[in-house]
Amino acid sequence: MSQCAELLFVNEAFYHAFQTRDVAAMEALWARHVPVVCIHPGWRAMATRDEIMASWHGILTSPDAPDIACCGANGRLVGGVGVVVCYEQMDDRVLVATNLYIREEGAWKLIHHQAGPSNLTPGEVTDDPVGGRLQ
Amino acid sequence: MSQCAELLFVNEAFYHAFQTRDVAAMEALWARHVPVVCIHPGWRAMATRDEIMASWHGILTSPDAPDIACCGANGRLVGGVGVVVCYEQMDDRVLVATNLYIREEGAWKLIHHQAGPSNLTPGEVTDDPVGGRLQ
Repeated sequence: MSQCAELLFVNEAFYHAFQTRDVAAMEALWARHVPVVCIHPGWRAMATRDEIMASWHGILTSPDAPDIACCGANGRLVGGVGVVVCYEQMDDRVLVATNLYIREEGAWKLIHHQAGPSNLTPGEVTDDPVGGRLQ
Repeated sequence: MSQCAELLFVNEAFYHAFQTRDVAAMEALWARHVPVVCIHPGWRAMATRDEIMASWHGILTSPDAPDIACCGANGRLVGGVGVVVCYEQMDDRVLVATNLYIREEGAWKLIHHQAGPSNLTPGEVTDDPVGGRLQ
């Protein structure tokens, strides 16, 4: 599998962990040896692994956790960083996300996640990659 | 000047171009030889340079362009990519941004910008770097 295909596969695994409320899988997806940053929609930036994992634990174990599906993921390698831009379809709204990954112990690991609102409706989102769709 | 200090300097220049409505400076700050992505708060992802520059032209020449100040910028180098997380103070609200830079022709150039809402108020934002402040 190419590095870029692996990157998109791991990005799918991130949303699968979210969708299936799998706290352990979520924890395993985040890098351990470099600083990590997570910006949930409408939150402040969190910049410690402990705080980020506590936030995911809270989100994934909440009965109000939203359904989520990743759409239109566009992944590319820039230097040694995997940069993914994608849409997150959550019930009746669409968020847009930046996910950054590095290689750690032979696998892509998340070092940065930011999600925020977009002006798209669920019906407007397709599986075409973000860049391809807009170019 | 270290690469990281240069990175934060260029990130300041980005917000200075925004604050002074300097379309030419904004255009010069974005990379020309690699794909670029821009996600304004509440918009969809834009992934062509032409579309991104048209959006900045619209924003910077609008009489309603908000005042903006960058606070708490945290910059680091990851695999040849400059990753900056910072707050954007805009009138009475605070956004949080991810800005990615690469070296192009001897200078840091923007390849990715995402800004979205945060739950901070202007009074809660300081000049301490995001990570330092939260760790």
